Amino acid sequence: MSVYDEDIRAHFRVKPGTKIHLKDYDPDWSGDDQLSKDKRKKRAEAFLREDVGDLIEAQERLYASRSWAVLIILQGMDTSGKDGIIKHVMSGVNPQGCSVVSFKKPTEEELAHDFLWRCVKSLPERGKITLFNRSYYEEVLVVKVHPEFLEAQRLPRVDENLWENRYKSINRLERHLTRNGTAVVKFFLHISKEEQRQRLLARLNDPAKLWKFSANDVAERAYWDQYQGAYEQMLNATSTEHAPWHIIPANHKWVARATVARIITNVIDTLHVGYPAVSDEMMEKYEQIKVQLESEGSSQTAG
Amino acid sequence: MSVYDEDIRAHFRVKPGTKIHLKDYDPDWSGDDQLSKDKRKKRAEAFLREDVGDLIEAQERLYASRSWAVLIILQGMDTSGKDGIIKHVMSGVNPQGCSVVSFKKPTEEELAHDFLWRCVKSLPERGKITLFNRSYYEEVLVVKVHPEFLEAQRLPRVDENLWENRYKSINRLERHLTRNGTAVVKFFLHISKEEQRQRLLARLNDPAKLWKFSANDVAERAYWDQYQGAYEQMLNATSTEHAPWHIIPANHKWVARATVARIITNVIDTLHVGYPAVSDEMMEKYEQIKVQLESEGSSQTAG
Repeated sequence: MSVYDEDIRAHFRVKPGTKIHLKDYDPDWSGDDQLSKDKRKKRAEAFLREDVGDLIEAQERLYASRSWAVLIILQGMDTSGKDGIIKHVMSGVNPQGCSVVSFKKPTEEELAHDFLWRCVKSLPERGKITLFNRSYYEEVLVVKVHPEFLEAQRLPRVDENLWENRYKSINRLERHLTRNGTAVVKFFLHISKEEQRQRLLARLNDPAKLWKFSANDVAERAYWDQYQGAYEQMLNATSTEHAPWHIIPANHKWVARATVARIITNVIDTLHVGYPAVSDEMMEKYEQIKVQLESEGSSQTAG
Repeated sequence: MSVYDEDIRAHFRVKPGTKIHLKDYDPDWSGDDQLSKDKRKKRAEAFLREDVGDLIEAQERLYASRSWAVLIILQGMDTSGKDGIIKHVMSGVNPQGCSVVSFKKPTEEELAHDFLWRCVKSLPERGKITLFNRSYYEEVLVVKVHPEFLEAQRLPRVDENLWENRYKSINRLERHLTRNGTAVVKFFLHISKEEQRQRLLARLNDPAKLWKFSANDVAERAYWDQYQGAYEQMLNATSTEHAPWHIIPANHKWVARATVARIITNVIDTLHVGYPAVSDEMMEKYEQIKVQLESEGSSQTAG
């Protein structure tokens, strides 16, 4: 019995109000059954291929029905595999119905607005999937670890309720979105500090990956414990019934990719989107058009 | 000798200043050699697979180098296969570096700006590919066929130079873009009127495709000759050295897809984008970081 056969969302979902200790979640997890690791990996890769196919099909139904949008939020420490998830899970999906927005250091214009604004501007329209590579959650992560960043935001008031109020603003936005036809799917890619060290070294040792290396990633590593704390509080405060977090064990890329792919397709399945029905009235009109187009053909042949 | 082995761009490119008669271009073309049609189709499909792989790789280099952007413009009559090209050529490309923008009936806000504005807002940044499914060219196509649409644009002056001035504005925008690091690749998907008739009938006869059917497509079909005329003038006036049009025979979907894929990868190849070099100074800094990360590992082992 594999976790992929169960309700996989329930397995990785953070129940609302759970006090999270990330130490209790094993980033090295790669399956809970009796198969060898090699076999588990092969199986996860097969599931990923299958799920990417399912996702392509699910996105087509979503696009045709135009009743729901899907917002996917990816968060995780540097090197936790966000870019790889995007490449391996989302490639293959028709780019006409899917977009990825990466949020970097905010611009002056963005800083001059409330902290949700730049993300709200990029929300998906009905029928489409948008993936946020980082998101407004950075505002309770990097900004919490480096509160000096708040200065540039020129807030009217900074007090001890600031973080609680940010969680509230986020929860209310997500509640509003789900009520109005945007499903919100959130993933925290959980890696260990040792795994990050090895991935940073791998980048430094591979000339083809060197361009991706940022000295800043190593500098931020010094704040590892503070980040883990900020993630724990975020997961505790913003995993809700309508927009739960999923903690994805991400030390093994093949586990993370297969799990994320399956959860996304599962969520779209629960939306029950399908090809829109055509009314009797329209069908009648279409019949007339068909006759017209068919006669055009025979007149051409005759002519 | 197949056209795919030659300089395929030259083969389909409209030379600047060419007076175009679309009747001289066979939309049914499916290869110029001695192979059977079945073998040509198999070969085109193999080329498409190969080119989609090359395109994925080319997009990664483009993304890493961040020196060029690529703008792809797709134009063609209804049912000419624009959506199919997007699905079959662009799926597989990492959505983090690629987006598709479909231009529909302009909104009030868009009409309140100049006719290039809404497209300019969506231009790709360096490192990315953006595909326009329709574009500002609609302003010299559907608007030329239905000049009554000009009224909603509230222009200060409508005179006999209007269309020439639009071509000029477009050419100057594209010259500006190519000078500043955006390659512009333009495709006209050329189908016959009879092929459109059959595709419309196929949509009407297939319950899974019925939702895509629009009675408006059939209404516009009555203006077929006017559209062909508008396309001819557009191709003549806006195929330039820096941003040439390609006329793609599109009665066979497999021809159109393989040809478009190969031209796009060829264009990116000519940009000679590669992974950015790392300076000696940075390499030295990276060496220090490496030593630091490695010692962190051994102290953990010791601890």
